[in-house]
Amino acid sequence: MERHHFEAEMQALKSQLLTMGGLVENRIHRAVDSLIHRNDAEAQKVIESDVEINDLQIEVDERCLKLLATQTPVAGDLRFIAAAMKINSDLERMGDQAVNIAENTMKCLDKPPLKPFIDLPRMAALAQEMTRDALDAFVRRDAELARDVLRRDDEVDDLKDQVFRELLTYMMADPGTIERALSLILISRNLERVADHATNIAEDVIFLVEAKDVRHHRVE
Amino acid sequence: MERHHFEAEMQALKSQLLTMGGLVENRIHRAVDSLIHRNDAEAQKVIESDVEINDLQIEVDERCLKLLATQTPVAGDLRFIAAAMKINSDLERMGDQAVNIAENTMKCLDKPPLKPFIDLPRMAALAQEMTRDALDAFVRRDAELARDVLRRDDEVDDLKDQVFRELLTYMMADPGTIERALSLILISRNLERVADHATNIAEDVIFLVEAKDVRHHRVE
Repeated sequence: MERHHFEAEMQALKSQLLTMGGLVENRIHRAVDSLIHRNDAEAQKVIESDVEINDLQIEVDERCLKLLATQTPVAGDLRFIAAAMKINSDLERMGDQAVNIAENTMKCLDKPPLKPFIDLPRMAALAQEMTRDALDAFVRRDAELARDVLRRDDEVDDLKDQVFRELLTYMMADPGTIERALSLILISRNLERVADHATNIAEDVIFLVEAKDVRHHRVE
Repeated sequence: MERHHFEAEMQALKSQLLTMGGLVENRIHRAVDSLIHRNDAEAQKVIESDVEINDLQIEVDERCLKLLATQTPVAGDLRFIAAAMKINSDLERMGDQAVNIAENTMKCLDKPPLKPFIDLPRMAALAQEMTRDALDAFVRRDAELARDVLRRDDEVDDLKDQVFRELLTYMMADPGTIERALSLILISRNLERVADHATNIAEDVIFLVEAKDVRHHRVE
């Protein structure tokens, strides 16, 4: 493979990961939207469209393996391809979380809503932004932006705790709310996991850029 | 790097992953044990000892990158190293789940137990067996054993649903049980995720052995 072909392949790899990231954001958004607007058909569509992200995951993996096999990538390129393989797994699992949100949503829709949604849409918006910024940080090799993503994970965790405390109060006061509240608690956990995956991506970016392992040594 | 050195490095990589797998199994076991025997100190130890798994993850990643950088691994070895990097991430996240189980356990211990534990220990035992067998399948390149791991994931999911239904009944009947029941539901989800990671490892093994992508096309 010639150098310019190699560069074109690396470019295609970046594009594919950004496409996957866009699909993941879209699925998270639509899954939470189907909850808020009580749209059963939309939730069903989110579940069915997961196949698209899964297919992309296989394509990206094959592209990475081909690049490793046909090139002897130098240090920076090697780390980039290794990071791409990890990010690919994270994105696929974020897609799975969108499916879980849609499934939990469908369990809520046969009863009237518990309360207006405030924290869950906020969590979803944060998780989507973290996903977008983590991937932008990756393709631009921007460690600062990646660090910013790490910082935002605490905000998501705080919202998750707040959702939990609030729904616990509902459940204690009225056992008739337990099933709905449980579904919402599980949805908040799904969103927490999306943010965790974005955090994993951001950590991979910092390692890629600075060849320094920030995992298990979070920023303040 | 000479060939026999390369083989020694590959052997060291396998050993390290098996060591990590052993640590993960141990942590899951001890976390669930601390729940059953209401042992707060043991739960605390599980949380503190996660650093050991995290350190191993970094070592394994470095070993893989070094192997890729200094060798031009042939097809089979390349896929093996790529699989090792993914399995490494899965093992580290399984360790995180043990920490989550220990944390959820600590929330349960200030109140008397809800009921004798039957399904959660069963889930934990299954998840540990799946972890061990998925890693054995990896080092022995045994696709049959890997397929067997995939089949067992359904059993874990059934137990998870059973735990959920049973605890829901408790919560409905007596709001005083809600907090404890919620912690136990979350522990069952933690164990489900451990089994999911074992499933991911098994899928990587089948891809490695048969160069066939079984992800998203589960066995019957």
